[in-house]
Amino acid sequence: MGLTKYITEMAKAAKEAYFALTTVSAAQKNQALSFIAEGLAKQREAILAANEVDMNLARLQGLDAALLDRLQLTGRGIDAMIDGVHQVIALADPVGEMDEFRRLPSGMMLGKMRVPLGVIGMIYESRPNVTLDAAILCLKSGNSCILRGGSEAINSNRAIASVVTSSLIRAGLPEAAVNLITETDRTGVDILVNLPDYVDVIIPRGGKGLVQRVNEKACVPVIKHLDGICHVYIDSFAATDMAINIAVNAKTSRYGTCNTMETLLVHANRAAELLPLLQQKYDEKKVELRGCERTQQILGDKIIPATETDWSTEYLAPILSIKVVNDVNEAISHINHYGSHHTDTIVTDNLPHAQLFLRAIDSASVMVNASTRFADGYEYGLGAEIGISTDKIHVRGPVGLQGLTSQKWIVLGHGEVRL
Amino acid sequence: MGLTKYITEMAKAAKEAYFALTTVSAAQKNQALSFIAEGLAKQREAILAANEVDMNLARLQGLDAALLDRLQLTGRGIDAMIDGVHQVIALADPVGEMDEFRRLPSGMMLGKMRVPLGVIGMIYESRPNVTLDAAILCLKSGNSCILRGGSEAINSNRAIASVVTSSLIRAGLPEAAVNLITETDRTGVDILVNLPDYVDVIIPRGGKGLVQRVNEKACVPVIKHLDGICHVYIDSFAATDMAINIAVNAKTSRYGTCNTMETLLVHANRAAELLPLLQQKYDEKKVELRGCERTQQILGDKIIPATETDWSTEYLAPILSIKVVNDVNEAISHINHYGSHHTDTIVTDNLPHAQLFLRAIDSASVMVNASTRFADGYEYGLGAEIGISTDKIHVRGPVGLQGLTSQKWIVLGHGEVRL
Repeated sequence: MGLTKYITEMAKAAKEAYFALTTVSAAQKNQALSFIAEGLAKQREAILAANEVDMNLARLQGLDAALLDRLQLTGRGIDAMIDGVHQVIALADPVGEMDEFRRLPSGMMLGKMRVPLGVIGMIYESRPNVTLDAAILCLKSGNSCILRGGSEAINSNRAIASVVTSSLIRAGLPEAAVNLITETDRTGVDILVNLPDYVDVIIPRGGKGLVQRVNEKACVPVIKHLDGICHVYIDSFAATDMAINIAVNAKTSRYGTCNTMETLLVHANRAAELLPLLQQKYDEKKVELRGCERTQQILGDKIIPATETDWSTEYLAPILSIKVVNDVNEAISHINHYGSHHTDTIVTDNLPHAQLFLRAIDSASVMVNASTRFADGYEYGLGAEIGISTDKIHVRGPVGLQGLTSQKWIVLGHGEVRL
Repeated sequence: MGLTKYITEMAKAAKEAYFALTTVSAAQKNQALSFIAEGLAKQREAILAANEVDMNLARLQGLDAALLDRLQLTGRGIDAMIDGVHQVIALADPVGEMDEFRRLPSGMMLGKMRVPLGVIGMIYESRPNVTLDAAILCLKSGNSCILRGGSEAINSNRAIASVVTSSLIRAGLPEAAVNLITETDRTGVDILVNLPDYVDVIIPRGGKGLVQRVNEKACVPVIKHLDGICHVYIDSFAATDMAINIAVNAKTSRYGTCNTMETLLVHANRAAELLPLLQQKYDEKKVELRGCERTQQILGDKIIPATETDWSTEYLAPILSIKVVNDVNEAISHINHYGSHHTDTIVTDNLPHAQLFLRAIDSASVMVNASTRFADGYEYGLGAEIGISTDKIHVRGPVGLQGLTSQKWIVLGHGEVRL
């Protein structure tokens, strides 16, 4: 069977499964989820063994340490997956929720019902736990999914997907509600993103290259996350300790996450006082600083000059660019121009400045006096997240169950016709 | 100046104008809108004269009657436009609205703020009133817009846009908040839909060909409306009069609208009773009937056999396809399979059937005992609508002010950092 036919048939079956899911109760979905949690516990050794096969192949192929790290599953990792399933079971089922009802002049009642998106195509890279996260979030939100993970994780993904499939069957739900593409030929992605009759939305999760390629090829809507170029702006009215704590935490608590600060903006009135204090903290953590001219004047020659490129670079590394700005407006302009619309924070005690920043910053998460590192689905109480969207339509920021649903209009009439 | 540079510069200016609009008050936007209403009244003759130029050119070019009808502006049309502006003034400003606040375990407050989408590219065909509708809805919702209307309406569109521009200036708002592309070279559309740095969303409004072409070419999100293949399903438990009224109204009150019924589904138990009554009504209106085999058995040979193609055709004409189905489940399957996810209605007195239909039909509007013809923004109380979305993400059905906005996350902290 050719790849096109294989994926198209899978997508057709997924669509049928989605239609079957529309009328399934929350209890039935939760039962399938609890079977998945049980299955993961029972199949722990088999999953770890499959992962070991992937790890050995990856080592043989000389894949780099960062990739091996993402690929590896441990016993603790399986525990975390099981915990994740229980968290999703505990979340309210958003499907079928009705609200915003009102009576129209014609006498009809108009409202909205929350509904699944349909068939979701997930395209991701080496982390095998994404296979589980995507499966359980899609199932709970009433969506079918087609999962296309990285080829290097194929044995781990098969082992996880097989637990999911047997749990669906045991719960009496359609097996095709969760599908794993096991043909890892790269062209499979191009086929999957061009089936508008069967696939409703594509969620790529991985490096910028993957996301851009998917976005260019797709003819169906894409919920995507590109860069995380997050900013902390220390206002003239910032409390000193708070400013230092947040600027240090936002950069140094983890370097590889998308909600890590990449550029620090400091009000000119506070730069001479704060930058030397911050330099000391960053030096302790071996963070390389790249500064604008004014930053260099304060911190001296050992600061690398920041170039135009620095302002729009997601380092994902112990590197920080620093710019001194004249006021909150300059900070806002800089962020809206160079940022990636992910997460930005102002540190200030001044209410109008906080309000202006909240209103004017064009990002998925805008914060006052808090570290950018808080921007994720767990911290926001969404339970597991399937990604963090930097898009502006449909859903912004962490995408949990609600982000995987939409609303349709409901009209309850009494025989009304239109004049 | 080349077309690419012309449109790119316009889009850059629109983005700057959008940033300026983020902090503008509702009062200021309403003032600009009231200046637009005044300006339309004052420039009534100039607009009509410009439209007459377009009409004459269109007649010379031998454009068809339907197009001429869409192109024509009348005094009453201008009145309707002015009314439309006043309706939009009366709508609440959604921008800056904050809700869903809750305290997180960390102590921070998390909420959401409603925000504009940014820069909206509208691509439409010959109706000049779309120029005004798009301008006022985008302005009220805090979006900048770039309008690309049909070349045949260019003089009318220029006249309307000039009223908008002078009103923006008079209200102290950025002129580039509303932009009309006056170079009507077709490649302009391809340029506009591929400026992800400046244009946030594209809304095509027009024939299926236009919408499909835009969707294929665009690399930014598209809010689109393809077909309106709407269904009425008459259930076994339908009240006779109600069933007849709705089936007649949904088909015959207007033929060219997207919320007109194109296929009628009738439960087998009621077909022998209802189809002859309906045939009589449709005959009076000269509606051509195309039926499935069972329909033909009841209505006789003069019914044209419906082919597979009929079930997925938007006639936009006095033609109706009819199918007899065995139960509500067959009706649901037929609609989800052949429909266009626009608007579908069930006529029934049976509550479980109504509930099942509401839940399982995968359409933007799902109705019980009401004519599909009610599915539009005015009827739904959204005020003017910028289109009707058959997409599943972001916004479904009539797109009013709220559909032109999104929400960002707001975090109000007290210096919290992440452990």
